[in-house]
Amino acid sequence: MARWEPDAQGRLMGAAIELFDEQGYEATTVAGIAERAGLTKRTFFRYFSDKREVLFSGSQELQRVWLEGVAAAAADTNPLTAVVAGLEPVAEMFTERHPFARIRTRIIEANPELLERELIKLQNLAAAVKAALVERGVSANAAMLAAQAGVTVFQVAFAQWVQQNDPTALRRLIDESVQELRSVTAN
Amino acid sequence: MARWEPDAQGRLMGAAIELFDEQGYEATTVAGIAERAGLTKRTFFRYFSDKREVLFSGSQELQRVWLEGVAAAAADTNPLTAVVAGLEPVAEMFTERHPFARIRTRIIEANPELLERELIKLQNLAAAVKAALVERGVSANAAMLAAQAGVTVFQVAFAQWVQQNDPTALRRLIDESVQELRSVTAN
Repeated sequence: MARWEPDAQGRLMGAAIELFDEQGYEATTVAGIAERAGLTKRTFFRYFSDKREVLFSGSQELQRVWLEGVAAAAADTNPLTAVVAGLEPVAEMFTERHPFARIRTRIIEANPELLERELIKLQNLAAAVKAALVERGVSANAAMLAAQAGVTVFQVAFAQWVQQNDPTALRRLIDESVQELRSVTAN
Repeated sequence: MARWEPDAQGRLMGAAIELFDEQGYEATTVAGIAERAGLTKRTFFRYFSDKREVLFSGSQELQRVWLEGVAAAAADTNPLTAVVAGLEPVAEMFTERHPFARIRTRIIEANPELLERELIKLQNLAAAVKAALVERGVSANAAMLAAQAGVTVFQVAFAQWVQQNDPTALRRLIDESVQELRSVTAN
């Protein structure tokens, strides 16, 4: 019988990232993660299909929060501005995840297979943002350009954020990245 | 003893794309490609490591031509303008490859594994264009934003080009895509 464990998912993610950091990604097992979290393997598999999914489970929530933000932008908003508006709640959501994000980035960058998966997730994210813009009446080409630009803006800001010590800096870094994009694309 | 075969590589690519189109990618073998080209399997393997590489062998040349074009842009050129300048010789190079490109796109879009490989190749291309901009004195963040925007501009134009009957249209479609990008990123 399944017992309810308060924030089991959060505890498993915390335990996993600790172990990835301490002993490396390859050497960490699901059994080890469950043990560190004081939970069973069975509970682990209720939340994640494997240890890799601990690293990627946040991407669905990122996408959901981003798309809600895009949908909430005023109807006459320029496409990139709508995309960036959606990044405001995303930045807020990520603030408390700064320690996790820093370790996660280091693990992914050291593992080509994880890096490929990250690339595919980012591609799916761009496709979802594009679809949200098309839904707003933006043409397919303009939507693809704005969505991909938004994902790159986010990547550039995120890469700086995980290098810094201030967990609240992400939103400012996103704004700076947008300004940079506008400057490099200006005629 | 290796006999010199006039344009063996071109003949192999032509034969491969014909067979991919006629009987599908999965059903096509290296032996079949060599036979159709009137060459040996041994000659095939002098140019390609496997049949998949027939589809991706053009990406190195694309990158070389693009980077040469970026390097040739005037020193004070805005980053995206330098990236787009590099796409002029790329568009010229692709004109005669229109029939190949159309069939190639269809094959890749139908095969998730090939699509992943294409995604990784595009990522590598963006990294190379970024490095070329950094070489020109552009900051790392601006270079990443401009390079990724350039790759997306190219993707959007390319996707339209393979849908059209005019092989010379790529350059115009790239210019339109850049205008579209400038319009979606405008304040």
